[in-house]
Amino acid sequence: MSAVETVDCATMSAPVDGTPQRLQKQIEFILEIDRLKNVLRRTKLTDGSRRENSAEHSWHLALMGLVLAEWSDDGVDVHKVLEMLLIHDVVEIDAGDTFIYDEGANVGKAERERIAAKRLFGLLPADQADKLIELWEEFEARQSPEARLAAAVDRMQPLLSNLMTGGYSWKKYGVEHAQVVDRTRSIEDASTQLWQYMRSQLEEAVRDGRLDP
Amino acid sequence: MSAVETVDCATMSAPVDGTPQRLQKQIEFILEIDRLKNVLRRTKLTDGSRRENSAEHSWHLALMGLVLAEWSDDGVDVHKVLEMLLIHDVVEIDAGDTFIYDEGANVGKAERERIAAKRLFGLLPADQADKLIELWEEFEARQSPEARLAAAVDRMQPLLSNLMTGGYSWKKYGVEHAQVVDRTRSIEDASTQLWQYMRSQLEEAVRDGRLDP
Repeated sequence: MSAVETVDCATMSAPVDGTPQRLQKQIEFILEIDRLKNVLRRTKLTDGSRRENSAEHSWHLALMGLVLAEWSDDGVDVHKVLEMLLIHDVVEIDAGDTFIYDEGANVGKAERERIAAKRLFGLLPADQADKLIELWEEFEARQSPEARLAAAVDRMQPLLSNLMTGGYSWKKYGVEHAQVVDRTRSIEDASTQLWQYMRSQLEEAVRDGRLDP
Repeated sequence: MSAVETVDCATMSAPVDGTPQRLQKQIEFILEIDRLKNVLRRTKLTDGSRRENSAEHSWHLALMGLVLAEWSDDGVDVHKVLEMLLIHDVVEIDAGDTFIYDEGANVGKAERERIAAKRLFGLLPADQADKLIELWEEFEARQSPEARLAAAVDRMQPLLSNLMTGGYSWKKYGVEHAQVVDRTRSIEDASTQLWQYMRSQLEEAVRDGRLDP
């Protein structure tokens, strides 16, 4: 029972005889995306204990998509929404998380993320890589009902986090009500009902001081 | 820009006028499951930096399911596999994570988890609660091709983590090759190819000392 704490340069062994090249590529992708667990976002867990990472955030969004898909104004293929939400932040492994209220950091974001998508999904066999890059581009374009709903859920979750933590990242970065509304009103492009709910929650937060007017 | 660090007893406001009871229940579920991000597993991230939590683990498994579903010997509905993997650990919020090599802790696990499933999924509107409880029970029963593949992926991921961290949790808890094989050979019930790959990786780990013979 010796205690091996960490290994600096751990690697998987080279392909074993008989391992299809295809499976080897898939395993490489699976190992590489573990790094998303170390990409920290600006929002905290709802209990305020620590900052959230992009991997657990993606899990939360996928379950939100599953539960809330019925509120889409246009109707969606819920499974396409799930796949989008599972992969939408993988690019942050290379490109980092960009805070939506930081206009400077958003310059060049699209291009950085496109390069990241090509490298990361490109670890997979070509047919799977092409499929996931296409899905990620559809999410980024925000045109299809599925992409609009996935984006709405992605906007909603940090709002819920801020509402539960006394407006933690709003206060910390000096974000006011009008900015929040401006950056999240696209929720309405997916669902009138979800936007009505979130808007009323934001107004409540202004009244009780969690969000500056 | 005042710094509000945490709020002890943060709550969402009561249902606003016009908010459907249904949506309110869904939001309550979404807020409650945030707690899965604080359930720690015995395995570490592949870079060895810290222990993994069950939320980010679930995200990782869902992407593994998406990428590896094609190796199922029986063929699967991949979307059902994704849904299973997204929800399979939610019960740990109440029941905790149970280390598969800890036989004592596994006593009473099924009953604890059943009660947890009823409470947690029961936060949702009844039709959604019923659907997710049924899906979770299908996963637990390991009978359908989807449940077998989901379980296989759930077994594979900590193996990959251990292989990448010099056998971190194997060493720490004194787990040997035969025990690992015993607890993970059900991968073969889902996929001959995936099991062949993992088995050869485990043999390699014995040869280079990451896993005790």
